[in-house]
Amino acid sequence: MTAFDDLMAFQRDTQALAEVAGRLGWDQETVMPDGAAPQRAEEMAAMENILHARRIDPRIADWLEAIDTALLSPVAAAQIREIERARQRALKVPVTLSMAIARATSAAHRTWAAAKAADDFASFQPALEEIVSLRREEAAALANGGDLYDALLDDYEPGASGQDIQTMFDAMRPRLVKLRDAALGSDHQPEKVIGTYPAKKQMKLASKLARTFGYDLTHGRIDKALHPFSSGSGLDVRITTRTNPADPFNCFYSTIHEVGHACYEQNVDRAYLLTPIGRGASMGAHESQSRIYENQLGRSRAFTGWLFDRMEQRFGYAPASSADAFYGTVNRLEKGYVRTEADEVQYNLHVLLRFDLERRLIAGQLDVADLEEAWNTRFAADFGYEVDRASHGVLQDVHWAEGLFGYFPTYSLGNVYAGCLHDALRHDCPDLDVQLAQGNVTYATDWLRDKVQQHGALYAPEKLIELATGKPVSVEPLLAYLEAKFGEIYRL
Amino acid sequence: MTAFDDLMAFQRDTQALAEVAGRLGWDQETVMPDGAAPQRAEEMAAMENILHARRIDPRIADWLEAIDTALLSPVAAAQIREIERARQRALKVPVTLSMAIARATSAAHRTWAAAKAADDFASFQPALEEIVSLRREEAAALANGGDLYDALLDDYEPGASGQDIQTMFDAMRPRLVKLRDAALGSDHQPEKVIGTYPAKKQMKLASKLARTFGYDLTHGRIDKALHPFSSGSGLDVRITTRTNPADPFNCFYSTIHEVGHACYEQNVDRAYLLTPIGRGASMGAHESQSRIYENQLGRSRAFTGWLFDRMEQRFGYAPASSADAFYGTVNRLEKGYVRTEADEVQYNLHVLLRFDLERRLIAGQLDVADLEEAWNTRFAADFGYEVDRASHGVLQDVHWAEGLFGYFPTYSLGNVYAGCLHDALRHDCPDLDVQLAQGNVTYATDWLRDKVQQHGALYAPEKLIELATGKPVSVEPLLAYLEAKFGEIYRL
Repeated sequence: MTAFDDLMAFQRDTQALAEVAGRLGWDQETVMPDGAAPQRAEEMAAMENILHARRIDPRIADWLEAIDTALLSPVAAAQIREIERARQRALKVPVTLSMAIARATSAAHRTWAAAKAADDFASFQPALEEIVSLRREEAAALANGGDLYDALLDDYEPGASGQDIQTMFDAMRPRLVKLRDAALGSDHQPEKVIGTYPAKKQMKLASKLARTFGYDLTHGRIDKALHPFSSGSGLDVRITTRTNPADPFNCFYSTIHEVGHACYEQNVDRAYLLTPIGRGASMGAHESQSRIYENQLGRSRAFTGWLFDRMEQRFGYAPASSADAFYGTVNRLEKGYVRTEADEVQYNLHVLLRFDLERRLIAGQLDVADLEEAWNTRFAADFGYEVDRASHGVLQDVHWAEGLFGYFPTYSLGNVYAGCLHDALRHDCPDLDVQLAQGNVTYATDWLRDKVQQHGALYAPEKLIELATGKPVSVEPLLAYLEAKFGEIYRL
Repeated sequence: MTAFDDLMAFQRDTQALAEVAGRLGWDQETVMPDGAAPQRAEEMAAMENILHARRIDPRIADWLEAIDTALLSPVAAAQIREIERARQRALKVPVTLSMAIARATSAAHRTWAAAKAADDFASFQPALEEIVSLRREEAAALANGGDLYDALLDDYEPGASGQDIQTMFDAMRPRLVKLRDAALGSDHQPEKVIGTYPAKKQMKLASKLARTFGYDLTHGRIDKALHPFSSGSGLDVRITTRTNPADPFNCFYSTIHEVGHACYEQNVDRAYLLTPIGRGASMGAHESQSRIYENQLGRSRAFTGWLFDRMEQRFGYAPASSADAFYGTVNRLEKGYVRTEADEVQYNLHVLLRFDLERRLIAGQLDVADLEEAWNTRFAADFGYEVDRASHGVLQDVHWAEGLFGYFPTYSLGNVYAGCLHDALRHDCPDLDVQLAQGNVTYATDWLRDKVQQHGALYAPEKLIELATGKPVSVEPLLAYLEAKFGEIYRL
């Protein structure tokens, strides 16, 4: 065995343990008994303790020293890069702090869920204060005097900075606002969805949609949860979704979205199983897959035509007056509050609000005590109407309860990446719509597997997208796509 | 912090990690996607690696050295005893072997399930050969020249030996066989159960039964699995059961049985949460709880009278011609093959068969290749009829696939303990039947919590039973109870 083999054997166990820790999160949000929360927090902390110790294990430094990096293949070099990245981060953060974060975020989950159910931010405030404080402490340890927010962002999107994200939003915001206002002000408003949709039948069609988009249920499963998510890597990648009888799209498009994440993990080259690059390249890269599955494919005119027929068959009546009208229905802009239910145009405005607020929280410019008011004020300014309740406002997302500061902007980055990928995909497959109209997404999903998913974390995220598309990353394809699509639907 | 406090803080994480590892087992048997099995085996092995390293962590020896054992409270002394016990075992077994066992048993689970479904022992044989070989290797490492089987047994029942178990069975076997033959030959045969019982309604009544016996569902949950089991300690103790429309007792009494295990774990003094004594004292002690819940309470004339009414209400017809006849129906001896479906008389004969076979396997006197034939020959000799298929014979139990050699005899030991406890309980509560007839088991379960469950692993198992009953452990109460009960039912 060479030093590299020894290192990878050690790493294999580390990755397996990381999978175990991740599955504790799945368990917590789907099947865990309520009263188990305090014990679960201890279990999460104990796993974090183990993982932290392994990331900084002194043997890693010895192995790294013994490896001649000049002789490494690109794959081996990427493995080393990821190991070193995790090690450097872990070396900077005291294990007691990592454990405290694991414990606090595990315990906060139920507090958040209860506060959301009661529309009561005050009951969540102390838990969130603790989490913000701990994450700021972690950011300070990581930043070495640099920007705190950037230090956190880097964990989800290697190499990205708050300033990059700001620049991206600055380029997007005016055109999105203009498009939103034009659409909402148009005389040609799409129909609202007709009828109600029983939860059980929604779940059956969601399962059909999941399989249509290539989700492999022999290595996955679908459950219901408060918040849709995808969890796990390799041979065990699980998704959750939710149902609302009045809004079948919530279930269907949450499912397709999570399937995008799950397929990314399932389609990583099996040679990378339980290795550091055996997972998505970044959260932004991940969102590019979930959003292109959900939107550019799933909400396309061609695919919604197919879905219209399926819904009519399964629920016994048409969800709109015609398949053509249904395309507008699926893509209808609403004056809504909830990010996960937002259309493609307003979605990024929801993210921008969170990005600005969380950046101020981490910078110490905004107190958690003032967060609800700041949210509501900002929301009214951005959207033109008042938040009606906390579960539609500051409590709507689970992310902050999980300590995920720096995560939100990766959603918009993912949309931008998806715009670039969609451009290239359409170029390579001019008759994509013919296939989508038959409910056949395999050309698209094969293309994405080949160009993006199979590589895992072999490349840095921006490089991955550039290799896939042959062009530098730009907001332009996404904005052009949105303006064309919604311009047509709203006859702008 | 004293050395003792440091040791207990370290141990708290170890216990939390052991809970995580245990929950991987629950996940594997209830919700894991089939294709995840190879990755799961790696995850299990990685957890075993961590747990093994923690059990022999050199700091434990330092802490133990620094503790003045003369000053310890009985509780603290018991904690040290359990830590030292785990350490001594782990020191003897190489971690590579522990990991190989974890990996092999995790992988074998699906192999066993598929082989059982196909009634094909040959397809399971190679996996079982590997497991037997690994466990024999482990036993040799533990035994230090002593008896291999005793070394394995000690893990489930501290202090017990194969010879003790043999003596116990020698005392029981003739009287059980005589009782069995008399019952089966009696002219007064109880009625068979009437009707069929839809699975969903069975599960609803099973849940009611679980709550009746005190199972706390805010710290637990009930799922279906191939094999009923209880999993976890402390604040997250889960059970599984199964349904067969033709045999509602399989579901109801499996549930009550697993509730006995689960309540034991849930009722351990919360001060012991995530400590070495914060769990049942032994597998035998555990079975004493599950079996007394299931049999002495659940299959009593008084309680079956209450159950008769519940079944009539819920399923729309009486399960027997009268409540009195139903008592016989529930306790009817059948010429059956399956241990978990066996009546109280024949149950121990099933265990005895397994004990003798696994003792020979571990001693190297029986090859896995010859196991099916040995099982079938022995079964015909003990029961007087031939095994009709492997799923009714050598493949019926999951235990050997999980590497649990030395576990089976603790079932009979548990029955013996349950006999002792039941005697003492009846003495303390002469009108117990009045309560049971109303479906009220709280006096009994409170008594068991007080006398047994709350103590966790504070006492060695035999001492625990002696403290609870005020008498030495003996097979006599169990045999006297069985002879009286079945003598009455069969008018012997």
